[in-house]
Amino acid sequence: MISVEEAQHKISERLAPLPSELVDIESARGRVLAEPLHSDRDLPPFNRSTFDGIALSYQSIAQGTRKFPITGTAYAGSPKVVLTDLDSCVEIMTGAPVPDKANCVVKVEDLEIKDGFATLNDGVELSEGFGIHSQGSDCPAGKTLLQPGCLLTAKELSIAASIGKPQLLVSRTPRIAIVTTGDELVEISALPLPHQIRRSNDLALQVSLQSAGYRNITRHHILDDLAATKATVQSILQDTDVLILAGGVSKGKRDFLPEALENAGVTKAFQWVSQRPGKPLWFGDFEGEGKPTYVFALPGNPVSCFTCLHRYVLPALAEVSGQTPGPSQFARLKCEFRFDPPLTLFLPVMLSGDESGRLWADPLPFNTSGDYISVARTQGFIELSRSESIFPKGTSHRFYPWSV
Amino acid sequence: MISVEEAQHKISERLAPLPSELVDIESARGRVLAEPLHSDRDLPPFNRSTFDGIALSYQSIAQGTRKFPITGTAYAGSPKVVLTDLDSCVEIMTGAPVPDKANCVVKVEDLEIKDGFATLNDGVELSEGFGIHSQGSDCPAGKTLLQPGCLLTAKELSIAASIGKPQLLVSRTPRIAIVTTGDELVEISALPLPHQIRRSNDLALQVSLQSAGYRNITRHHILDDLAATKATVQSILQDTDVLILAGGVSKGKRDFLPEALENAGVTKAFQWVSQRPGKPLWFGDFEGEGKPTYVFALPGNPVSCFTCLHRYVLPALAEVSGQTPGPSQFARLKCEFRFDPPLTLFLPVMLSGDESGRLWADPLPFNTSGDYISVARTQGFIELSRSESIFPKGTSHRFYPWSV
Repeated sequence: MISVEEAQHKISERLAPLPSELVDIESARGRVLAEPLHSDRDLPPFNRSTFDGIALSYQSIAQGTRKFPITGTAYAGSPKVVLTDLDSCVEIMTGAPVPDKANCVVKVEDLEIKDGFATLNDGVELSEGFGIHSQGSDCPAGKTLLQPGCLLTAKELSIAASIGKPQLLVSRTPRIAIVTTGDELVEISALPLPHQIRRSNDLALQVSLQSAGYRNITRHHILDDLAATKATVQSILQDTDVLILAGGVSKGKRDFLPEALENAGVTKAFQWVSQRPGKPLWFGDFEGEGKPTYVFALPGNPVSCFTCLHRYVLPALAEVSGQTPGPSQFARLKCEFRFDPPLTLFLPVMLSGDESGRLWADPLPFNTSGDYISVARTQGFIELSRSESIFPKGTSHRFYPWSV
Repeated sequence: MISVEEAQHKISERLAPLPSELVDIESARGRVLAEPLHSDRDLPPFNRSTFDGIALSYQSIAQGTRKFPITGTAYAGSPKVVLTDLDSCVEIMTGAPVPDKANCVVKVEDLEIKDGFATLNDGVELSEGFGIHSQGSDCPAGKTLLQPGCLLTAKELSIAASIGKPQLLVSRTPRIAIVTTGDELVEISALPLPHQIRRSNDLALQVSLQSAGYRNITRHHILDDLAATKATVQSILQDTDVLILAGGVSKGKRDFLPEALENAGVTKAFQWVSQRPGKPLWFGDFEGEGKPTYVFALPGNPVSCFTCLHRYVLPALAEVSGQTPGPSQFARLKCEFRFDPPLTLFLPVMLSGDESGRLWADPLPFNTSGDYISVARTQGFIELSRSESIFPKGTSHRFYPWSV
């Protein structure tokens, strides 16, 4: 049995990055950028008016002029107009280019416009450059705006749009297969016999993966039969980057997965991790035609399965996608917690922030690792070290959020 | 000009819940539940073995018996087997029903199995009920497991699957239209003239909405022309629940939206909010055939537009979808911040958690509200009250995350 840290290390050292591909910006949400993005020109590309009002030379105001003839109008989307006379002004709209000789914009609220003249209201305070978002002030042309590894959300895609990237190089989305096992599992729409239960792990895994941005997912179910397990595993391995199995991995007489996986040529990296839930976790890799497949066999218990997905599989998927890791999150225990076994504990908690900016982790009343009903009330889990057994109120621990 | 709180109130008091509809569980991710869900039977539905091992009567162990004849095998997915003799045992697999007369499961690691007998290892500690996840211990039949208003993520859908709900009643997804305006805006793939910029607000709005789970979204762009603006607004209002406009809403000579909206029969609730960015924000509603359309006209400046979406539009969408509000988040300022104007400030911040579970908000070097490049480095904004101008280091403020 190995520790959580060793398990994580053994996974990580086997992972290789996925290749990249071009996608349309419209469908790049949630993908991981695989190229740097540079500004193609100064941003803003011209001295941009930040108000509706008039543009003029500040020097004339400094010299005491308060009334200016209007010699033109500058609209957003129209070519830059010329300020012919330093004692005149042009009307200007928000977003329009400021004329070359103008260096100040007065807001329309601070003016009276009448008979072709603009007169400043009394008490208006101005300065050189006021009301102008100056060319290149957000960034100069050629600057690196986004680095490879960044997750593409609305704000990154907005930048990509503004610099003219209708297509983006991103890491290929991993092909993921989910395989559940177990004779006791029936369809959602079935009426189960007394000894049967409805299948839910496959849906929980798929939905969590979708929430984390993965789209290329297939689902399979196999009964507890060695030949069927071998055949299914073998066929799925061919065009899958990550194979996630649930159930059939422990020491039961019909736990055929370890045998079927090794039979199919998957090299076991480890099984058995000193953790609760999820002790039977199995991980290995398969060298297909020029590309590896990573195989995670998770315990079938719903809470174990869900926890191992978040603790091991989702981080591994982010890593093969080249995603730059975000900072770790920590939360404080809302009450003392005791756990004696020499195992790392993944403890589902209700997370809440107080008004002073502290995060609190309120543990669930601890039932068994099968209690997935209570887990619905939690937002994730904290990881409690196996080297201690008493975790005082107020101590802080690493928090892993459920994917939403 | 009204306050942020008044604006929020004026929006909220006009909102009516959307009707509900049945959807397949497979496509219910991100939707809001519109019915309560009850357990259809005890969970677990039978006394379930939590280990691979043997099931037996604890009384016989208490009386000193260590070696038990094996009289059968209980598999997950097979009908419950019978423990015929209280001094015997059955082999049992994880997830299998425990025989009626058995009340203890011994793990396979704690046993030796040989010649049809199981012998307990020395020093194994057991108790009545050990290794059994007892019937109804997660919840009894008929208990309410999920309430209307809950957002459906993996863990909620897993519960729905386990209680046999292949379809779920959820609030109808709002039909959203995004309309950008502005002669200066060109396509992402275009090479802009010096006075033009590429359009990015529509994509940023759409992607943020998609990240928040909204799928029924159309996009439109109109040039700065009164007749075209009137015609487009009028036609879109008919089959839209929420209309989001960007640009054309301020005091410029070609800001035709307020006129076009009122001309189309949209009743203005307010315009101008004492906030930065986003002061020109306009909100109104339109009474169509039996259903209202809510109209948010956001400023065209990318940061203003993005901020107003998160501060006003996304909360309104959650409200019409019937979603139970989550708790507010708070973060502490990492350094003193000063802001003199009597406006509520939405300040983009880099959020980080320290190892003691505190959240810190590190403000961006403050440029102008047009600096959407820097915003990419932030995770959201804090809201600073307009009644103060000095915000000391360490004071905590409400944090709004960007939708990811």
